[in-house]
Amino acid sequence: MNDSVAEFPLPPAAQAAGQPRYRQIAGLYAQAIAAGSLQPGQRLPSVRELCQRHGVSLTTALQVLRHLEAEGFAQARERVGYFASIPGRVSSLPAAREPELHEPLAPDPHVFAGINERISTFLEKARRAPLALDLGSAMPAPALFDAEALNRLAIRLLREQPEILVYSPSAPSTHPEFQRAMAHNALSFGLSLAPEGIGATHGNSEAVNLALDAVAEPGDVIAVESPTFFGILQAIEVRGLRALEIPCSPHTGISIEALELAARNEPRLRAVVVVPHLQMPQGSVMPDAHKERLVALCVEHRLALIEDDIYREFVESAQPMRPAKAWDRPGDAGQVIYCASLSKSFAPGLRQGWMSAGRWNARVQMLKFARTRNMQTWSQLLAARTVGSPAYDRHLRRMRASLKEQREQSARAVARYFPSGTRLSLPPGGISLWLELPAGLSSTRLYDDALARGIRVAPGPMFSNTGRYERFLRLSCGMPFTPAVEEGYRVLGELLAGQCDVLQNAGRAPLREEGRRAAAA
Amino acid sequence: MNDSVAEFPLPPAAQAAGQPRYRQIAGLYAQAIAAGSLQPGQRLPSVRELCQRHGVSLTTALQVLRHLEAEGFAQARERVGYFASIPGRVSSLPAAREPELHEPLAPDPHVFAGINERISTFLEKARRAPLALDLGSAMPAPALFDAEALNRLAIRLLREQPEILVYSPSAPSTHPEFQRAMAHNALSFGLSLAPEGIGATHGNSEAVNLALDAVAEPGDVIAVESPTFFGILQAIEVRGLRALEIPCSPHTGISIEALELAARNEPRLRAVVVVPHLQMPQGSVMPDAHKERLVALCVEHRLALIEDDIYREFVESAQPMRPAKAWDRPGDAGQVIYCASLSKSFAPGLRQGWMSAGRWNARVQMLKFARTRNMQTWSQLLAARTVGSPAYDRHLRRMRASLKEQREQSARAVARYFPSGTRLSLPPGGISLWLELPAGLSSTRLYDDALARGIRVAPGPMFSNTGRYERFLRLSCGMPFTPAVEEGYRVLGELLAGQCDVLQNAGRAPLREEGRRAAAA
Repeated sequence: MNDSVAEFPLPPAAQAAGQPRYRQIAGLYAQAIAAGSLQPGQRLPSVRELCQRHGVSLTTALQVLRHLEAEGFAQARERVGYFASIPGRVSSLPAAREPELHEPLAPDPHVFAGINERISTFLEKARRAPLALDLGSAMPAPALFDAEALNRLAIRLLREQPEILVYSPSAPSTHPEFQRAMAHNALSFGLSLAPEGIGATHGNSEAVNLALDAVAEPGDVIAVESPTFFGILQAIEVRGLRALEIPCSPHTGISIEALELAARNEPRLRAVVVVPHLQMPQGSVMPDAHKERLVALCVEHRLALIEDDIYREFVESAQPMRPAKAWDRPGDAGQVIYCASLSKSFAPGLRQGWMSAGRWNARVQMLKFARTRNMQTWSQLLAARTVGSPAYDRHLRRMRASLKEQREQSARAVARYFPSGTRLSLPPGGISLWLELPAGLSSTRLYDDALARGIRVAPGPMFSNTGRYERFLRLSCGMPFTPAVEEGYRVLGELLAGQCDVLQNAGRAPLREEGRRAAAA
Repeated sequence: MNDSVAEFPLPPAAQAAGQPRYRQIAGLYAQAIAAGSLQPGQRLPSVRELCQRHGVSLTTALQVLRHLEAEGFAQARERVGYFASIPGRVSSLPAAREPELHEPLAPDPHVFAGINERISTFLEKARRAPLALDLGSAMPAPALFDAEALNRLAIRLLREQPEILVYSPSAPSTHPEFQRAMAHNALSFGLSLAPEGIGATHGNSEAVNLALDAVAEPGDVIAVESPTFFGILQAIEVRGLRALEIPCSPHTGISIEALELAARNEPRLRAVVVVPHLQMPQGSVMPDAHKERLVALCVEHRLALIEDDIYREFVESAQPMRPAKAWDRPGDAGQVIYCASLSKSFAPGLRQGWMSAGRWNARVQMLKFARTRNMQTWSQLLAARTVGSPAYDRHLRRMRASLKEQREQSARAVARYFPSGTRLSLPPGGISLWLELPAGLSSTRLYDDALARGIRVAPGPMFSNTGRYERFLRLSCGMPFTPAVEEGYRVLGELLAGQCDVLQNAGRAPLREEGRRAAAA
């Protein structure tokens, strides 16, 4: 954001009577910036200075800075603070978005509800629309897997164990061969797990749900990254828990400082859910030093650390990524509940996940049995006999190379077709891009318009309860970049240019020409 | 129980000071019976008479009668009342156990906790013991299925749809082919369901859990049959709900009168869970007239009827059994949440269940997506292409015939080896027997002793929170009755004879000779 070009200042937020206090205060600073009495790049008051200066709470002061940032009047710099800026167009990709605020929002009741309704509404719309192109699902295309080898193994297994589909184990235990294989493979990325503590689950969704069931009671607070994978917010909501969204840098992941503040101030905080590797949707990869601090913090404050490590194998890196669980105490004493899935890297059609729940292991096993009982042996053995093999490692290398190419092609398509001012972080791996649209544009609107053209996207509001991501968008690059995909990007650009038109006609921002030009390029 | 032979009266329950009120009152009647002032067969006071006579609450009065019944001093007759009896040996099988009390226990806090801990303890013990014979799991043996045909279909499916294991649908919908096949098959047993309302689940455990999630909040009350499948009690407990156990006849299932009383008196009652066909563990089959009344009652009191129809296909009957859902209003207006599973009848290794949730359909779909997301297409298509086919119907007929033979052989083994006084209902189908051991014997003790001999059973306390089933026992007859199984029954008889010895030595009951003779027969 250092290369931001301030060109088209928006009018400052109206300072109407009856507005919430934070908007009134934000209005003061916005006016000062618009009037030039605060220059772009000048430091804004800190949270604590705002508290003292205006006699408001920490929460209100945070809201002031967040609002200014959302309106484009402030930019956050990691560990430094907020700086004045002028809203408007900024240069386009691949400028990574800067890290954000490092203090948490206090848990406001209004942000705790509605994610499931919102997600269900989006899904219901998608179900009804004839879908030509799915850029909304973060799932690698079937072509990226070695289906032939998997089917050969599947048939071999049916012949070797002809009763495997009609036999159900009498105890609810995960298959020992699966436990051994996952524990053995975990060693290859620096994680030593007791095989008998490994439990098979229905994808990592069930694992994260069971972890939440095990550690929290309705009304308790769970810290999550902001923005985060909507499935985590859904799991929190259906259990009657409250989500506390913690700022998350697109480079280094969750803010440890902000989390620490939350741990000190929120007595009902019980757990933290993080996606350490290729955080969804921002794509950050947590540095090892952060993981170590995070585990120590959770131990100190007796918080469960629920580590959703679903994208680890997709990180572009010479060294395998070590999960935060590697810094945990071993075995049943552990504070980290490690959740993994083979749905993204091995076989999306099997829905095979697993977990290792540390001190909550017995409770998780009990809950698992009460909710979905035994697991398929079939699926577990397919995974056990593949994951960690040399063929599997070759498959992963090929897959990473394909995904890298697809991400770069997608990013180039964004540059070619989307309105200038669109920003994205090109993440160091993974199957999706997280985009920030120019101010005033709406990803919800784009979702509806794109569905009408047969294209599905994942709009920003799916990834947070804060309402801060209306102009953000996740696009999947899981599928090969065919001409049909490119055409999809062109259509999305065209739809966004249409939004720019509307804004311009309403006098909100003179974006039309730039938007149209970009879309036609 | 009309053929009961009263031979060995136990001493009446001690009437110690400091005992709960209900035991004091029960003691009065027990003494009267032992002293002959109340003759066996004479009618005992009704619940309301007890309330008036002793100035106690409905709950306490019910506890008095239940306690007398548990001690053998009372016998219940359906719709009539309680009658005095003398505890002791009764003639053995196949005398069906009489229906029990028709008023519900008021929900006492102490009966709402601990089922999961109890089940986990049983399972943990079983996991540690080397298991030679499993009479504890209600699961048909692999030999009862046509694994060869299933494997052929599985291989054909992999060749037809080579990407089926590496493809994940982008929407959380159940596969349409599965929906159509289940809806089509449901027609054959009198149930008309909208295919799009059918949702695939991980076994019927997940279905029942989702149903409870959808209709109740923590603290709400759920009525269940007593005794009932422990999985239902577990699901209720993990969700923070409270189970209200309603008396259940071994012939006709849940008492509608008792349920109606509960519906009038329990303001937080939200749902009823029933297993209408081959109720687990008693084996009752609900008459159609009861189903109709049950649905009407639920509609009237706005209770969800959660119908767990897992054993329907195992009923010995010329006509297919119609679920209670058949009396429900169609489609989304329905009050009945129908839960089914293919784990028992088609392929235990697939864990494929499904549900049709009536008015709660949208909510169930949302919860399902939040908790375990998408389902395997593979498993759904295997089921869709088998269930309802002529080959499947032939398989079911063969399976029913095998199970019938196994049940009868098991019942004969009980007669041969178990202490006289053991009672059982030979149910009209299914994969298990529910036994009542002579007074004073403990199925928990038998569980431990049998495990030490490599045999697993399912003790009565797994099936209720009321503490009323300590001398009950479920034995699986899912496996072919081999000499090894017969030897297992002999060992169980021997262990029970040992318990009789201990009782006799303690002067509690002179059962030794009879028990020993039965075990050696």
